[in-house]
Amino acid sequence: MVKLIALYKNPVTPQEFDQQYFQDHIPLASKMPGLRKIEVSRVFGAPQGEAEYYLVAELYFDDMDALKAAMTSPEGKAAAKNLMGFAKDLVTMMFAQVEEKIPTCTCS
Amino acid sequence: MVKLIALYKNPVTPQEFDQQYFQDHIPLASKMPGLRKIEVSRVFGAPQGEAEYYLVAELYFDDMDALKAAMTSPEGKAAAKNLMGFAKDLVTMMFAQVEEKIPTCTCS
Repeated sequence: MVKLIALYKNPVTPQEFDQQYFQDHIPLASKMPGLRKIEVSRVFGAPQGEAEYYLVAELYFDDMDALKAAMTSPEGKAAAKNLMGFAKDLVTMMFAQVEEKIPTCTCS
Repeated sequence: MVKLIALYKNPVTPQEFDQQYFQDHIPLASKMPGLRKIEVSRVFGAPQGEAEYYLVAELYFDDMDALKAAMTSPEGKAAAKNLMGFAKDLVTMMFAQVEEKIPTCTCS
């Protein structure tokens, strides 16, 4: 499994960003072929100092071929175009291989 | 569900880092009480330019109380101490609330 990770820095106007992100971008991104799961997480703090990011989005695909196909599909291009319209200066993206997924004891 | 996200920048000696991380740190971190899941992902590229990070680790807990309890537990302190010994200048940590987890169609 691979994922596209998008890290978003703090927007100037969070309310406006949230509207553009959750109401417009997520529905577009969700249409990408081969997408297995989206996990969006809202950063609310850090163990030390201030958190460097505002939002973390992870889009899961079976493998890199599927991810590439999704990004170059019409749906992927539409999602990317939309994103660049409101978050170009906020977003950092990277590809990652899910190496370890360790289920742990739920007894505690 | 909340998660502790740790972003690691590129280490000077990846092989040494991997050994310290996977052989020493992960087993220590896995002992934290209340930990529901660890997902470790290896960054291998970016859509544009070079990726800013080397590794992404996500530790899932039921809520912030459970995460705080884990971090202040003896197991959590041991894991943090171990981490600071080899990755202090590489790691960026943050707390995040998992806001959306969207299962998508598996038909394509």
